[in-house]
Amino acid sequence: MAYQHKIVRRVEFSDTDMAGIMHYSNFFRFMETAEHSFFRSLGFSVMMSDLDPPLGWPRVHAECDYKRPLRFEEEIEVRLLVKEKRSKSISFQFRFRKTHETEEAARGLVTVVCVTWDETGRIQARSIPDFISEKIVIAPAELLV
Amino acid sequence: MAYQHKIVRRVEFSDTDMAGIMHYSNFFRFMETAEHSFFRSLGFSVMMSDLDPPLGWPRVHAECDYKRPLRFEEEIEVRLLVKEKRSKSISFQFRFRKTHETEEAARGLVTVVCVTWDETGRIQARSIPDFISEKIVIAPAELLV
Amino acid sequence: MAYQHKIVRRVEFSDTDMAGIMHYSNFFRFMETAEHSFFRSLGFSVMMSDLDPPLGWPRVHAECDYKRPLRFEEEIEVRLLVKEKRSKSISFQFRFRKTHETEEAARGLVTVVCVTWDETGRIQARSIPDFISEKIVIAPAELLV
Amino acid sequence: MAYQHKIVRRVEFSDTDMAGIMHYSNFFRFMETAEHSFFRSLGFSVMMSDLDPPLGWPRVHAECDYKRPLRFEEEIEVRLLVKEKRSKSISFQFRFRKTHETEEAARGLVTVVCVTWDETGRIQARSIPDFISEKIVIAPAELLV
Repeated sequence: MAYQHKIVRRVEFSDTDMAGIMHYSNFFRFMETAEHSFFRSLGFSVMMSDLDPPLGWPRVHAECDYKRPLRFEEEIEVRLLVKEKRSKSISFQFRFRKTHETEEAARGLVTVVCVTWDETGRIQARSIPDFISEKIVIAPAELLV
Repeated sequence: MAYQHKIVRRVEFSDTDMAGIMHYSNFFRFMETAEHSFFRSLGFSVMMSDLDPPLGWPRVHAECDYKRPLRFEEEIEVRLLVKEKRSKSISFQFRFRKTHETEEAARGLVTVVCVTWDETGRIQARSIPDFISEKIVIAPAELLV
Repeated sequence: MAYQHKIVRRVEFSDTDMAGIMHYSNFFRFMETAEHSFFRSLGFSVMMSDLDPPLGWPRVHAECDYKRPLRFEEEIEVRLLVKEKRSKSISFQFRFRKTHETEEAARGLVTVVCVTWDETGRIQARSIPDFISEKIVIAPAELLV
Repeated sequence: MAYQHKIVRRVEFSDTDMAGIMHYSNFFRFMETAEHSFFRSLGFSVMMSDLDPPLGWPRVHAECDYKRPLRFEEEIEVRLLVKEKRSKSISFQFRFRKTHETEEAARGLVTVVCVTWDETGRIQARSIPDFISEKIVIAPAELLV
């Protein structure tokens, strides 16, 4: 059972914009990378279209508070914490900071919904299957402050 | 004086991901495009580093609620509404919908702060200059529901 | 029958990098946008997975010569010219220039191959169907210099 | 003295497109990441705007041959080889393959030029400084086949 995960990643040239800092949309790419890495650490891929029924995890909400800019070649740590877990959805909190620094550079939140679809492609929310749900727990309240 | 703006844009192949829909991070790119087009419609670029003192508009918060997926080649309308205007910051609401449809596909919110910087590069929030502020008003409450 | 096509597009903030110019990878996104717009102008989408057999157009080669940088908010014209047409592939030349300027900013080349796939997903090159091929001709040699 | 470098990287969800494979423009982002990692391995960053005179490395040519598609979550090895070294420019060859496979998935080529600029921002090609040039050699011919 896990409630957190961490990835380390360097800001690349193509992540920056003409203001000389990481473009604000790319924080969402980094969050997604942390989320998928979390799923892999639990033993499965986020792509579950081969299951019967198939599963997917579209996002219904995403947000980010930007506190300090991130720059080219800086090594960034993105820490995922499970903030909420409901029958059909999970919310992840993400904390960005430069490696070896303590101050937060950004904080994000993403809510994903578990869905399935039939042969016609019609998508429908469904309960998170037990084999996934039982591996994920909400992080202790004191970590989520 | 303006409180709204609209851009039309087609979803491109490179905006999609392997789920067959526009990647969630790209909604933030579309919002920014609408914001910059709004600034241009008022007569100035969002890049004001040539002013004395120079001005910039970093974002401190961004969020999006995803309601319906957007697909390749669909023509999308992004409507910007000025939601809040404070002495040093502005919040924009963004509404996505497919052209010729009435249902909202996504709704976003971005807060930008007016900043300047000195010769050492130190960034500091500052009041929005009158020549900009006087051209922007908050949208009527009934539009922001 | 067509041998050329033109799109106009503004360089967006998210297209730039910390060098203050359009990132070199984004020229390839602009080329693809011109290519897909060319297909639409002929009456069909580049996504032909609903056909029987399904058709796709993966690229096997792409290149770009960069001559002059493109900057934020500049309006760019990308002109597509059909450079070569073989039984199973097409090569497009792309010319970038700023609107109202004559000098070329960049020149690209992309070769796409017509493919189909069976139920197992195995991909195989195939002849370009007549209904597509008959609408596309090679550009006059003097335009391709 | 070095003539090669290697990075390993996983294909991320945001690297894919609706065809289910890595978008063709993203191969150029991966190449650049390998190039910058190569520079770091030699002891300096590719961003040398603090030098006197300042140095930059704009690219004048980039190309890629696509041989096999890359998919989400696959681990990719990008190997850089110094293909040519002239007084003012360097050409890098890039070879993509999935980790633990021998077949090449793609092969790229990028030519960068050493430039400097004066106070007015005017850019001019210049000789690669000795402290950089002496660390880089052309790869053996048998590796470049």
